[in-house]
Amino acid sequence: MAEYAHSLIDADPDRPPSEVVLEDVCAAADRLEGVAHRTPVMTNSHLDALTGAGRVYLKCENMQRVGAFKFRGAYNALSRLSDEAKKNGVLTFSSGNHAQAVALAGKLLGIYTVIVMPTDAPEIKKRATRGYQGEGGELVEYDRETISRESLGAELAAERGLTIVPPYDHPDVIAGQGTIALELLEEVGEIDRLYVCVGGGGQASGCGIVCKGLLGDRVEVIGVEPEAADDATWSFETRTLHSVHNPPTIADGARTPSLGRWTFPLLLRHVDRMMTVSDGELVEAMRLVMGRMKMVVEPTGVLALSGLLRDARERADEIAGQKIGVVVSGGNIDLGRLGELIGGSDG
Amino acid sequence: MAEYAHSLIDADPDRPPSEVVLEDVCAAADRLEGVAHRTPVMTNSHLDALTGAGRVYLKCENMQRVGAFKFRGAYNALSRLSDEAKKNGVLTFSSGNHAQAVALAGKLLGIYTVIVMPTDAPEIKKRATRGYQGEGGELVEYDRETISRESLGAELAAERGLTIVPPYDHPDVIAGQGTIALELLEEVGEIDRLYVCVGGGGQASGCGIVCKGLLGDRVEVIGVEPEAADDATWSFETRTLHSVHNPPTIADGARTPSLGRWTFPLLLRHVDRMMTVSDGELVEAMRLVMGRMKMVVEPTGVLALSGLLRDARERADEIAGQKIGVVVSGGNIDLGRLGELIGGSDG
Repeated sequence: MAEYAHSLIDADPDRPPSEVVLEDVCAAADRLEGVAHRTPVMTNSHLDALTGAGRVYLKCENMQRVGAFKFRGAYNALSRLSDEAKKNGVLTFSSGNHAQAVALAGKLLGIYTVIVMPTDAPEIKKRATRGYQGEGGELVEYDRETISRESLGAELAAERGLTIVPPYDHPDVIAGQGTIALELLEEVGEIDRLYVCVGGGGQASGCGIVCKGLLGDRVEVIGVEPEAADDATWSFETRTLHSVHNPPTIADGARTPSLGRWTFPLLLRHVDRMMTVSDGELVEAMRLVMGRMKMVVEPTGVLALSGLLRDARERADEIAGQKIGVVVSGGNIDLGRLGELIGGSDG
Repeated sequence: MAEYAHSLIDADPDRPPSEVVLEDVCAAADRLEGVAHRTPVMTNSHLDALTGAGRVYLKCENMQRVGAFKFRGAYNALSRLSDEAKKNGVLTFSSGNHAQAVALAGKLLGIYTVIVMPTDAPEIKKRATRGYQGEGGELVEYDRETISRESLGAELAAERGLTIVPPYDHPDVIAGQGTIALELLEEVGEIDRLYVCVGGGGQASGCGIVCKGLLGDRVEVIGVEPEAADDATWSFETRTLHSVHNPPTIADGARTPSLGRWTFPLLLRHVDRMMTVSDGELVEAMRLVMGRMKMVVEPTGVLALSGLLRDARERADEIAGQKIGVVVSGGNIDLGRLGELIGGSDG
């Protein structure tokens, strides 16, 4: 993640990396008040029975603005920019939920947004991003065979004075994502464990800070990533940062190559355990959420739930009777693709 | 609906048909308190922009217990039975949401339930119904080529002293469904119009009673049914009860042959307008709800929303700036079937 080091937005050079604290999350919550949706917390008696938990609370970020938790971090980061940086505008490269999150946050805050996306990104993602931007931004397409997005992004940013907004490895992004856990605990009180998804580690870091800050060792925080993209689990276990490139998993939001300069140490400190699940388990969890709870979820969105379901089989004794939080992180999926994944007989 | 006349549960013979009033709905709400889910009311800025409404409020009964509003009416009706009737048990014939609603209500109230379903009903519906019943009920299958469900049901009911619970044409069922509108108005305050779906008319009657009882002519209540099953619209316009048999529509919950002895006069009195929508419009509305609001809905579940979307095109002036309620009535659909309906490119 060294390529972000020179362009971190608004980072305080006197504060050492990995110092994001509960107060930062509380301040982010104030900024997001009335702007981000306070997403519903859902329970389901079938899910309780299936897992043997006392009660499972799903924090439904698929119902967040832009359909994913990413809006929290993007809005918090953009609202923290200096007046001058706001006037100059921001840039990000993403073809995922972060792009839409930055586009909408920019529109709401009156900040011009430049989103760099490969020419072959799905039409629906380009349209959604352009839809959020309106007149207040532009989409820059590039050929991923011939140009690196990092060099194009850096060039554009330097040329036009744009601030680069990274998708996870930034203290304000991490603090924004932490508000998920803050809202969950405010609503349901103390919990025994929380399952979060891990791509770049922004959600896990932010939620871990909140859980450990408020409940200490009384809560266990568990990070879940796809089997084929197990760089974070490997990094966590060896305490050495590893990366993985273009991992073949349907959880496209967790295909990030590695944890970051900020998120790796935060994860080591605030997450108790890392685990992986297979693509097949993700599809099963999607079918469960769609069939029983009537919610649309993307594969990355059910990583945390899949982790709980695996633990319910392998660690039933630990889970029995517990109050368990699970973050459902997003619901953005092409409906044709969704039909392919969850189709087939239920009978 | 004359076949129900002799077996209406707990109907007071001294009260004339069509007399279900606001107080009945309030009493139902007390019975459902803490038992039915208080379903979320969702808003979506894209939907507001698309319709030109001031704000559209979706009352999400797809997130009700058993995945549909039917639980409200079934539970209210069963809880109103005499002690003796409760001891003897109940019977219903349905292969839809009403069957699951009666099964779960019976289980919660300790009332034995007999559900009569054709042998060729989908395996998933049989399993779901049996799952809710547990030891407290049974599924009776019949060959629909050789036996009529009415005669089989009447025979079983007489033989075993079971009370028949009709799916819509009963005052306690109607009062239960009215709690949808009661909760909506409690949550969002006064609205300018409400869209409801019409199959047998239970939801429309109950919600109409509440809207007119609380807001009078300040609210317009609009009933929506499938084009291919337009018996209620036809009956409404001619003020004469008409029926339709096995109408070919994907909205299987609205394939009921006609309004009932109770619901027809209630609908005439409390609904301002009836309209129809095509199956294609239902699929479009499903894609909108799934893509933008991340909720799973069945075709019947978006009848009301499809009505609003049609009106937004044809009566834009009326709708502009209004506060509009829409009941999303259910989300029970085989995921394979869902994949077929909503699949295909979004691009």
